[in-house]
Amino acid sequence: GEGGEGEGGDVVEGVRVPVVRLNVGEVAEATVVAVLPVCKAEEKEKEVLEAPWECGSEGEFGVVVAEKGWRRWVVLPSWEPVAGLKRGGVVVEFADARVLPWRVNRWYKEEAILVVADRGRKAVAADDGFYMVADGEKGLKVERGSVLKGIGVEESLGTVVLVVRPPREATDSQLDEEDWE
Amino acid sequence: GEGGEGEGGDVVEGVRVPVVRLNVGEVAEATVVAVLPVCKAEEKEKEVLEAPWECGSEGEFGVVVAEKGWRRWVVLPSWEPVAGLKRGGVVVEFADARVLPWRVNRWYKEEAILVVADRGRKAVAADDGFYMVADGEKGLKVERGSVLKGIGVEESLGTVVLVVRPPREATDSQLDEEDWE
Repeated sequence: GEGGEGEGGDVVEGVRVPVVRLNVGEVAEATVVAVLPVCKAEEKEKEVLEAPWECGSEGEFGVVVAEKGWRRWVVLPSWEPVAGLKRGGVVVEFADARVLPWRVNRWYKEEAILVVADRGRKAVAADDGFYMVADGEKGLKVERGSVLKGIGVEESLGTVVLVVRPPREATDSQLDEEDWE
Repeated sequence: GEGGEGEGGDVVEGVRVPVVRLNVGEVAEATVVAVLPVCKAEEKEKEVLEAPWECGSEGEFGVVVAEKGWRRWVVLPSWEPVAGLKRGGVVVEFADARVLPWRVNRWYKEEAILVVADRGRKAVAADDGFYMVADGEKGLKVERGSVLKGIGVEESLGTVVLVVRPPREATDSQLDEEDWE
């Protein structure tokens, strides 16, 4: 793996998590897609702990087989950080990108984001890594490793491996042109 | 829906169900994908009855939200017959295409197929339609409307709307090259 800059991703300066925009039709450009269980940020840690761990793909049609049932799923292009998640991957849906603990980027604004975390890597290992943690009664949040270490937190719900931004607002036909450039 | 011929589908002569081959990367060519619950043919009717009915897509990321959890899912290009399935769609995975009750086609051979059925249309309505039915202890099968009517069966598990064939055989490395061309 390239340790990941998703295709078309802006890697925010000083942040080790790739941030990519999901283009309409992109689920498209990759011949391989990843299907991951989704949790809502406001559901707290319970959902992240409960979401299926194994979501392997089976047979010629790539049928996704999870070890348990789950209601919410998302299909993503199989970007490098996602493709590497053989087990333990989970997606948390945040209504507002401002939950991200960095402010260096101009796109920092009110938009929904998906945060992909690897539950197989719970240890708060890197100061400049980002981790999914419970935020008391408010649900879930993404926190910087250095901040967690500063308050003595050694274990998270998972290491953040990718942030996905929504498709740009535009009419369908405009998006179609971009997709196929 | 146009009751449909899937894009790129061979419509088998005299058969009203489109048969399409899933090309590698095609989940791709469509900007929109459909995610449907999957049942194994050998699981009998129980699974088809139990699989989630509502699998709507929500928000900018198209998160699939089912009314209940399910373990097996497949991502398909949003071909016309599939796109029209707002609720009640289900996919049955057969290990061998020879279960199909027609023999006019030269590709009639041992290959896995997915049969997409609409559980919202259970009535055995058309003589030349195809229906998903229980096959005693053997699991599920696809049967022609005229045959079912002939034995007095008026209700099926669902009307077959599409048959999907697997991608053509090729080595993984060949596929990879194709992917990124």
